[in-house]
Formats: sequence, C-alpha cells, structure tokens
Amino acid sequence: MIDTILNHKSIRKYKSDKISDDILNEILVSASKASTTGNMQVYSIIVTKDEKIKEQLLGAHFNQPMVKQAPVILTFCADFNRFNKWCEINDAKPGYDNFLSFYTASIDALLASQNAVLAAESHNLGICYLGTTTYMAKKIIDILKLPKGVVPVTTVVVGYPDETPELTPRLPLDAIVHYETYKDFDESKINEVYKERDNSKETQDLLKENNKKTLAQIFTDNRYKKEDNIFFSNEFLKVIEEQGFFNNK
Amino acid sequence: MIDTILNHKSIRKYKSDKISDDILNEILVSASKASTTGNMQVYSIIVTKDEKIKEQLLGAHFNQPMVKQAPVILTFCADFNRFNKWCEINDAKPGYDNFLSFYTASIDALLASQNAVLAAESHNLGICYLGTTTYMAKKIIDILKLPKGVVPVTTVVVGYPDETPELTPRLPLDAIVHYETYKDFDESKINEVYKERDNSKETQDLLKENNKKTLAQIFTDNRYKKEDNIFFSNEFLKVIEEQGFFNNK
Repeated sequence: MIDTILNHKSIRKYKSDKISDDILNEILVSASKASTTGNMQVYSIIVTKDEKIKEQLLGAHFNQPMVKQAPVILTFCADFNRFNKWCEINDAKPGYDNFLSFYTASIDALLASQNAVLAAESHNLGICYLGTTTYMAKKIIDILKLPKGVVPVTTVVVGYPDETPELTPRLPLDAIVHYETYKDFDESKINEVYKERDNSKETQDLLKENNKKTLAQIFTDNRYKKEDNIFFSNEFLKVIEEQGFFNNK
Repeated sequence: MIDTILNHKSIRKYKSDKISDDILNEILVSASKASTTGNMQVYSIIVTKDEKIKEQLLGAHFNQPMVKQAPVILTFCADFNRFNKWCEINDAKPGYDNFLSFYTASIDALLASQNAVLAAESHNLGICYLGTTTYMAKKIIDILKLPKGVVPVTTVVVGYPDETPELTPRLPLDAIVHYETYKDFDESKINEVYKERDNSKETQDLLKENNKKTLAQIFTDNRYKKEDNIFFSNEFLKVIEEQGFFNNK
C-alpha cells in the first residue's frame, strides 16, 4: 500500500496493451469505496476506450498524445443528476442546484479518482491526471453527453507505462505541513524550502532552454499565465452555472 | 493496497491512543506524493494535536465528538500563499488570484488527503472526513490562522478505532460508471440502482424514526436542506473571495 503511494510517478508514454476487464472493474470498484458525503455518491465516472471518442477527447486535452496512447480514459464528474432524479421520483424536493453542492460533488469525484489511481498503480499500471479537464469542461460535456447537474472535474489516463521516469522531487515536508497553526513564510524560509528545486540541474537546464532567470518565471510567464487563468476561470464558472449549480438564492 | 481500499469504513468513535511520530510522518509523506498540478504542490496540511485548538475546531465542526476523541486532526487547504511568495521573491508576477487557481489548488489538496487516508488505514488507523470544513471555512481560517491565499477544503480526523462498523453499502457500479458516453437515467433505471438501498432494513428503521415516506426525503428535508445549502454556498463563496481567489478580470 504505502509502497504504491510512495512510488507514484505520472506516466506520459503508454504501451498499446489493453487493460483486462477484471482489472478495470477492480479500479472502478476501488473508486466507489472512497468516502462520499453522506453516502450520496454524487459523482460519476465516464470510461472511454472507443478510439473515435478518444480522438475527440484528445482535442479537448490540448492534444497531449497520451490521451490517444493510453487504452483507458477515466473522466471523473461532480454529478447531482442521478441523485436529483432519485429525489424527484421519491416525492422529495432536491435543493442541490447551488455552489456548495457542486463543491461537495467535486470532493466526492476527486477522492474516488485517487482511489482509482492507487488501485491502477497497484497493478503496475501507469496514470496521469489531466488538468485540462476544468479548462475544457464545456467541450468535454459535449463529447461525453453530460446532462445538466454533471460537471467533469478531472481526468485520469490509465495504461501500461512505456517509460520509466525518475520520481518527481517534492518540496520538503515543512513546506506543506504546519503544526497546530499556519506558520507563514518569510523570504529566508521560502528560500530554504525551495533551495533544492531552484538549484537543481533540471531547473538550470530549463532556465537556459526558456531563457529565463528564475524557475518561478517559467511558471508565471510560460506554464500558468495570468491571462489564461482568468480566461479559464470565467469559462469554468460559466459551465458550473450552465450545468445548474449557481442558484444560490 | 486493494484490501485497504476495499475495506474502508468511516470511523466515528476513537480510542485515546496516540499516533506515533513515525506513523504520522509516513501519513504526511504519503500525502505529499499525490499528483499535483505542474508539481506546484499548491496545498497545505495543518496538523492539530493540541487539546485547546481541537476544542475550538470541535465548535467549527458542529460539535462532532470525534474531533475531540481522535488524537490527530488534519485540515487540508488549497494554498497559493507559499507559491505566490516564492514567485514574488523570484522576480515573477503570480497570476493565481482567480477561481481556476482556487479549484486547481483544491484538487491538489483533495488528492493529497486521500493518500493520507489510505496511508493511515494501512496502519489500522481509522479516519473520517468532515464535510463541515467548507460550511465553516471562515471560522477554521481564524482558528488555524490561515493567511490570504489559503482556504480549508476538507478535514480528516485520524485515530485508533473504538468501534467496528459494517462496510457502508454503495450503489451498484452501474449507478456511477458510464461507458463511452453518459447514459441518462429514466425512472425504472433509478429504481433499479436504488432498490437495495431504498428497501434495506436500515432505511425502513430510518423512515420510522424520522416519520418520513422515502429515504430521499430524509436527505432533502433533514440532512442536506436547500436553505442550508444556499446559506453555506454564499458563505463559502465569500471566503473564496476574501482569501483572494475571485479576481477573474
């Protein structure tokens, strides 16, 4: 268990080998065992294996080749559609068309996704999360025919690895863990926890390649730019509203 | 691995036994190995063991006794504070004061939380997620002294179980899994996937106890009421804005 967790690496190249139905089923059952608010299970998982639908998803996910390479794509969705229908059939008036309900359903979907990931990795499968899911939620909704009440929140590609990357170095634990109350960072503490990352060979190579002075600039100027974040914030908020989760009155 | 996942049960009664530093450290390291957007690790974990702070958190979490009983409370936060400070020190202008960044950081925090949970459970510890975190985010921010850029998104209590509940029955897999595209539910399909739950002895007992006709009514009228959802939606949106994540222009 712990070994699977400690050895996690995102895999970006996959073999064409299929995943057996038994293993896929175990991954999905594992997802379904995660904690869920009030046992409502307000999420759903769309399993994509069809090459034509994968081709469409590829476009939605910025043409990252692993979306075509990996045999299985799992799209995890915040989903109150099924629960709302159950309420209506049972003489109960659902009040879940609001932001809190969307966020609750997102938590359900994300905990389920991490269970699925660890189940897959315990079978020596590789995985990669796709952050593009929230950017391109509208397009994914169209491709996967998601009804009102359903919003895709993350995607995991799953398959047998065709690469053996190194473990991704994480920040030291005292960058992310605070005891009792939050101990805010001054400049020297920031420098201390980022020292290894800022000075690594990988960073030095990146700086040369991108002609930047600091690693942070590669994030702010190249990878996660303010204008993109604002654009996709507004797109995602629009999707949340269109899917029926912003009636906060 | 799979056994730990498949045997998950939320634990609501805890022994007073402490968790060793080694095990707690392994839980936190496990959390830090989860996938994170662009390896930004935009989350933080607040570890609470102090009895006085637990007493304050107890109030924030609707006085659920397990908050006092369990020896360790882990509050998982979406956190761009550290990353923003790193950017500023490194001549980079962070553009992460928007909704997408908040949601990205939430995903990081939630994936880390589920890793922590499974690491804890693999040591025979029990856990329970507290959904009250988003309802009472403002109060938790005050108690844990969370700066701007940090929003608590979920809480996990951890300790040695003092009860052995049954596994929580989940809906059949075809209630949550869709192949290729979403297959929407008609009344007969809803009845089919909810049949076992609707007709269980536990449900029959609940209906008598609450004087309700259907289980769905217990959710809509008692457990997750529209007026509460709307109230807490607006509270949570206010917190997201106050913590600096709603400058979508």
